[in-house]
Amino acid sequence: MADYQVGHHDDFSRRPFDPTAHDLEATFRLTRFADLKGRGCKVPQDVLTKLVSSLQQDYTQDPESQYLHSTPRIGIGLDCSVTPLRHGGLCLVQTTDFFYPIVDDPYMMGKIACANVLSDLYAMGVIECDNMLMLLAVSTKMTEKERDVVVPLIMRGFKDSALEAGTSVTGGQSVVNPWCTIGGVASTICQPNEYIVPDNAVVGDVLVLTKALGTQVAVNAHQWLDQPERWNRIKLVVSDEDVRKAYHRAMDSMSRLNRIAARLMHKYNAHGSTDVTGFGLLGHAQTLASHQKNEVSFVIHNLPVIAKMAAVAKACGNMFQLLQGHSAETSGGLLICLPREQAAAYCKDIEKQEGCQAWIIGIVEKGNRTARIIDKPRVIEVPAKE
Amino acid sequence: MADYQVGHHDDFSRRPFDPTAHDLEATFRLTRFADLKGRGCKVPQDVLTKLVSSLQQDYTQDPESQYLHSTPRIGIGLDCSVTPLRHGGLCLVQTTDFFYPIVDDPYMMGKIACANVLSDLYAMGVIECDNMLMLLAVSTKMTEKERDVVVPLIMRGFKDSALEAGTSVTGGQSVVNPWCTIGGVASTICQPNEYIVPDNAVVGDVLVLTKALGTQVAVNAHQWLDQPERWNRIKLVVSDEDVRKAYHRAMDSMSRLNRIAARLMHKYNAHGSTDVTGFGLLGHAQTLASHQKNEVSFVIHNLPVIAKMAAVAKACGNMFQLLQGHSAETSGGLLICLPREQAAAYCKDIEKQEGCQAWIIGIVEKGNRTARIIDKPRVIEVPAKE
Repeated sequence: MADYQVGHHDDFSRRPFDPTAHDLEATFRLTRFADLKGRGCKVPQDVLTKLVSSLQQDYTQDPESQYLHSTPRIGIGLDCSVTPLRHGGLCLVQTTDFFYPIVDDPYMMGKIACANVLSDLYAMGVIECDNMLMLLAVSTKMTEKERDVVVPLIMRGFKDSALEAGTSVTGGQSVVNPWCTIGGVASTICQPNEYIVPDNAVVGDVLVLTKALGTQVAVNAHQWLDQPERWNRIKLVVSDEDVRKAYHRAMDSMSRLNRIAARLMHKYNAHGSTDVTGFGLLGHAQTLASHQKNEVSFVIHNLPVIAKMAAVAKACGNMFQLLQGHSAETSGGLLICLPREQAAAYCKDIEKQEGCQAWIIGIVEKGNRTARIIDKPRVIEVPAKE
Repeated sequence: MADYQVGHHDDFSRRPFDPTAHDLEATFRLTRFADLKGRGCKVPQDVLTKLVSSLQQDYTQDPESQYLHSTPRIGIGLDCSVTPLRHGGLCLVQTTDFFYPIVDDPYMMGKIACANVLSDLYAMGVIECDNMLMLLAVSTKMTEKERDVVVPLIMRGFKDSALEAGTSVTGGQSVVNPWCTIGGVASTICQPNEYIVPDNAVVGDVLVLTKALGTQVAVNAHQWLDQPERWNRIKLVVSDEDVRKAYHRAMDSMSRLNRIAARLMHKYNAHGSTDVTGFGLLGHAQTLASHQKNEVSFVIHNLPVIAKMAAVAKACGNMFQLLQGHSAETSGGLLICLPREQAAAYCKDIEKQEGCQAWIIGIVEKGNRTARIIDKPRVIEVPAKE
C-alpha cells in the first residue's frame, strides 16, 4: 500500500491502480461490477418527490421535529436530517449515502465513498463527525480471490478517509448483491450553533462552487478507453492522455474532503449551502433554492468543468447534459450562498489552505425560489493540475 | 390501506396481500426481485471475520473508543457501535442493517425491515431510538407501475413500525439496484446506564429466546407453493394450510418489535443479549459467548420452531441446517443471558405484556467462550396462534 499517500489532494499524481500487482487479472475493472456508476444510480428526482410526497400528506408531523423547515423529511430535501435530542439542547445531525463503483482503484473507491457521505455533513457547515458506519455490498459476480483483494482495499480507503476527517469507522453492514455497493452513515451530535441552516440566502449574495464539474463524464470517458466503439465517438475531441488526466483529476477531486470548505463557511458567514451529487449542479441548486426563507432565485453563469470534459459531453449529444446542469457528480463540491463582499476572500482562503480553486458561478436575485443556468454559460476549463 | 392494523402482534390474522387490489398482476411477488432472501444475504461469518481482521492489526486503536471490548469494531461483533461523545458523558449507540425482500406484502416488508434494524438497539437494552434513516433500493426489474405501488407501501410500513417504536424516520437514501433492498439506520444518544454491555454472563445463568426460529424456512416454503418441483419435496410432511399459517406466523413474528423484551432485560437484570438474525441461532450465540468477560460457554437444549418448519427443514436435507442452529433468521428474537432465578419471571412477564411466549433454551456453564447445541435438541413446536 506504500504507493498511496493519505490525505493529500495531489493524490492524482501517484501510480494508477495495477490489478496484477494484487494478483488479479490485468483486465480486472471494479466498475464492471455494477451497470450504473457512482451517483448516477439515484432514483430520478421527480419520481422520488412523487413517491415521497404521497406519504407526507397523511402523517401527523411532530411540530417539535419541524423547527427547521416544513420540507419533506424523508429521502430528499436537506442534505442531513437534524433531530433535537432528549439531552442538553443537543441535536443529532445525520446522513447516509451509498452508490456503485465509479473508479477502478478499490482503495480510492473507499476514500471517495467516505468523502461523499461526509460531504452531506459539511454541506450543513458541520465540521466534526462523531461516528461513521460503512455499508458494503460485495458483488455476487466477484471471484473469491477478487473479493479477498478488493474488500480490504475498499475498507482501508474508507477508513483512511475517515481518519483524515478526524473520525473513525465503528461498525457497518456487509451483504452480497449483484452490484458492488459502497457507502456509509455519518453522524454528529452537536450544539445548534455548529450547523448552518441552509435557508438564509438574500438578494445580492453570490454562488460559490468548490469543486469542478464533470466527474461522471471523466469516469465514463476513461472506461471507454477499453471500448473502441464508444471511444470512436469522442476521439475527435479528446486524446488518450487528456482522458487519463481528467480521470485522475476526477478521482482526486472526489476523494477530497469538503471539510475546509465547510469550516470557511462559518468564517465568511455563508447563508446556506448544499453539496453537488447525483442530481447534478442544477438539481441541487433547485432544491437549495426551494428551501429559502426569502423570495430569491439562483442564476448560474459559469460552469467550471474538468479540462476537455465539456467537449466530451457535447460530443455525446444528450447523454450527460453536463452544460444543462444535469450530469450526476459523485462527491462533488459545495454550492454556497455567500455575501458578495465575502466571496472573493472565501475563494482566496480555500486556495491558500488547500491549493485548490473555488469559483464564483452565479448570483442570487429576487425570485420564486427556483434556480436556472443562463442560455450560454461560460465554461471554465479546469486543468488537471491547478 | 384499511386492511392493515398498526402495532398489533396479531397482524397475521389479517387478509393476505392481494396484488390485484393494487392494480398489479396477480402473479406479482416482491420476493422475486432478489435472488437471496432477507438476512440470508450476509457475507458468510468466517469470510467476514477474515476480511475484517486483516484490517484490524495495522490500525492504531484509540484506547478511549475501546472501553467496551477489544473486539473488532467493524462489520461484526457487537450488535451496535457505541461511541463516547464530546458532550456531557453521552454515548451514541448506532446500528445499520439492510436486506432483500423476504415476504410478498410490501407494507409488511417495510415493517419487518424497521423492526429488524431496531432490534440491534434492543439487543443492547436500549429502549429509545432517537432517529431512523431508511435505506431503499428499487429493483431495476420493476415496472414503473410496480414501483409506484410498492415503494409507498414499503415506506408506510417502515414509518408505521418506527412510530410504534416511538421514533420517526427523518431521512434516507434511495437508489436503483438489480435486487430490491430495504433497511435502515437506528441511532440513540444516551447515558451509559441506558444500555447493557453484553459481556456479563456467569455460570448458572440460563439462556432465554424471545421469538420462535424458522422464519427463513417458512418464507421459502411459502414461495414453493408456486413451484411444483420444490413443493413435491416437502408436501409429504406439510400441507398448504400449514405453510400459509407458518408464513403468517413468521411475518407476524418478524414485524414484532423486541422493545418490551429489551425493557424487561433491565427489570430482570439480564447479563447480556444479542438478536438472532443472518448467522442463525448458533452463529449469534457463538459471537455473544466470545464477548464474555468470564470463562463461560453456552449450551442450548431446546429449539422453539414455528410449527411444522422443523419437519420441512429436515425434508430439505442440508439446505437450512435449522436444527444445527445455522438457519438465517430475519428480525429474530433476543437471545438473553438471565440469572436462573429471574428467567421464569421474565418469560411470564413478556407473555403477560405481549401475549407471546418466550422460552428457556439453554444454560451457561464453565467454558472457553463458545456455544453449542446438544446432539438431540428438543424441538418445541410453536403453533400459529399462541
